[in-house]
Amino acid sequence: MLSRARNMLVDVHTHVYLPRYANLMRARSKAPRIVPSKDGKGESLIVLEGKDSGRTYWDRSEKLAFMDKHDIDISVVSTANPWLDFLTAKEAPLLATQLNEDLETYCATGPSLSSSLRRFYGFGLLPLLPDVPTSEITSVIEQIGTLPHLKGVIMGTKGIGKGLDDPELEPIWEAIASKGLVIFLHPHYGIPDELFGDIENGHVLPLALGFPFETAIATARFILAGVLDRHPNLRLLLAHSGGALPMLSSRLASCIAHDPLVARRLKHDARHYLGMLYYDAVAYGAPELTMAKWSALGSQRMMFGTDHPFFPPVPGVADTDAKWASVTENLAAIKAVPGWSEADKEGVRSGNAIKIFGLA
Amino acid sequence: MLSRARNMLVDVHTHVYLPRYANLMRARSKAPRIVPSKDGKGESLIVLEGKDSGRTYWDRSEKLAFMDKHDIDISVVSTANPWLDFLTAKEAPLLATQLNEDLETYCATGPSLSSSLRRFYGFGLLPLLPDVPTSEITSVIEQIGTLPHLKGVIMGTKGIGKGLDDPELEPIWEAIASKGLVIFLHPHYGIPDELFGDIENGHVLPLALGFPFETAIATARFILAGVLDRHPNLRLLLAHSGGALPMLSSRLASCIAHDPLVARRLKHDARHYLGMLYYDAVAYGAPELTMAKWSALGSQRMMFGTDHPFFPPVPGVADTDAKWASVTENLAAIKAVPGWSEADKEGVRSGNAIKIFGLA
Repeated sequence: MLSRARNMLVDVHTHVYLPRYANLMRARSKAPRIVPSKDGKGESLIVLEGKDSGRTYWDRSEKLAFMDKHDIDISVVSTANPWLDFLTAKEAPLLATQLNEDLETYCATGPSLSSSLRRFYGFGLLPLLPDVPTSEITSVIEQIGTLPHLKGVIMGTKGIGKGLDDPELEPIWEAIASKGLVIFLHPHYGIPDELFGDIENGHVLPLALGFPFETAIATARFILAGVLDRHPNLRLLLAHSGGALPMLSSRLASCIAHDPLVARRLKHDARHYLGMLYYDAVAYGAPELTMAKWSALGSQRMMFGTDHPFFPPVPGVADTDAKWASVTENLAAIKAVPGWSEADKEGVRSGNAIKIFGLA
Repeated sequence: MLSRARNMLVDVHTHVYLPRYANLMRARSKAPRIVPSKDGKGESLIVLEGKDSGRTYWDRSEKLAFMDKHDIDISVVSTANPWLDFLTAKEAPLLATQLNEDLETYCATGPSLSSSLRRFYGFGLLPLLPDVPTSEITSVIEQIGTLPHLKGVIMGTKGIGKGLDDPELEPIWEAIASKGLVIFLHPHYGIPDELFGDIENGHVLPLALGFPFETAIATARFILAGVLDRHPNLRLLLAHSGGALPMLSSRLASCIAHDPLVARRLKHDARHYLGMLYYDAVAYGAPELTMAKWSALGSQRMMFGTDHPFFPPVPGVADTDAKWASVTENLAAIKAVPGWSEADKEGVRSGNAIKIFGLA
């Protein structure tokens, strides 16, 4: 039961593997794949080879139990990485369409909060592969536009293969902008492992640094390509509070101003474009949100997220029955940002998402 | 003439190529190298192949002219990247020793500010190459300890080849800490160019993102290896305000806490170690300094820098006779950090460096 006495909480960074997608992963011999779990009691998800994500996340009741445990009212769910990247150009368009229908059903048949609000909304998938004809991609964008609970698309940093500065993406940006869909930009590939050295550090460096570096590079390339000069209405939501880019935004502006080749290319200073983007509040600390806040020109472009089902409590290190630190830390961070009013914080927790995604 | 009416300004991030080093570069056929300039009037410096740094910077009078133009009283100069990395293990130790003597002379024979303060201090060079015996490296550390104007060493992110988490560095950390020298950690290698895509963006992405990413990775590996648990007195100064690490410090702490392999390894939360480090204020914006300030536990660990001779005004884009934006932006940023008192700002401009390097 949802208490109406408290304010709402909307999670814009929360992933699913839908049953149809899970079936694909069960048939695979390398990551992403699903294997029988070591305890023999179920299945384990391997997103990054060598790292057992340990539990299954294709069941909506599990997502709801997580939401209820953490007082999350609404989840705007997205298929987790690596999306359709391991498919062929022949398979991807149909599967994207089917998975979008599946996700619409997942949202539409889930519980509602009120006559106008449901507990689930979603980001659709696009068949973003090099050899898929643009018309097939734009027709999936059209499809998503007809599905009432899908409010955006999740996109990897490779775009259709060559990154977000690829001129081939122009008609796709155009189509997404015209449908008013939000693009959730999410990393998967990180940076080459050899940069992290020979010492065994688990997955700390690829996740803590590789992921946000990937997002920062993709976004900088997107900005440098002038995409926002041509498509000022495009709405790009950056995972993990923009990765490393907000703290490097003035350095980026300075390097552009000092490079004869690009100094005159863009209409605005690089920081202006960072202020046109949207950010989740998945940074685990108030100082980090304070930084992203500056780039985001206030609190209105930032939205709470959890990154569920990733980062569960580690047995033996944290209490596995307690609330997840990955959630409580992100909530505490929002609370502690200096200079944010209660209304600003409410915006980050729910109001901004309701407005940006047009939920109510 | 130095006006005593105003407060002091100390630049801790300012590079030189000493004449002996310049000679090395004139003999080379690939970067770093010095070639005749296109206008036939002098020489050009190529640090990154394809980018002409355009002017010569081995002349102390040029450095002084720059300092006077920007009211910089003291420069703590360091050899610019890539230091001795292109030499053989046989050549490097002698050349490091000679260049340290040269730098001592450069500082000691330069002008003074008062009976106790000179205008130049320096970071020495170490022969940090895989096949140099540790004893030869520690003996250069000993040498630097005897040179009164050298207050630290500049170090690349590779350490002696395998990065700052290399156990082989233990005796070197020990020797540097025992001499009270500050290590200035500086990037050079960035991250692989292919991550920046096919679109021509000059050197913007390697400089704006690759450099700080390199520093962030090196520092995270240094922290994860427990170096500061074993050498709590080691003083590491991070170039470019810590690169991307301050904004990712809570994410790093979270990823460590959620990784069974490393969750129990370190004595403290990752953010504690960031608070043990030192940061230059070379980030070109107040929001960025505000972020680094949090990690640096206040203003006391941050010091003004210019990155001279790099980032000169671009002809046709900026007024080449005016003060350099790369300097004025860093000064404006210090002024605009919310929550810093005048004393804090004075500390960043001069007091912290005087104290940390023991200049007066």
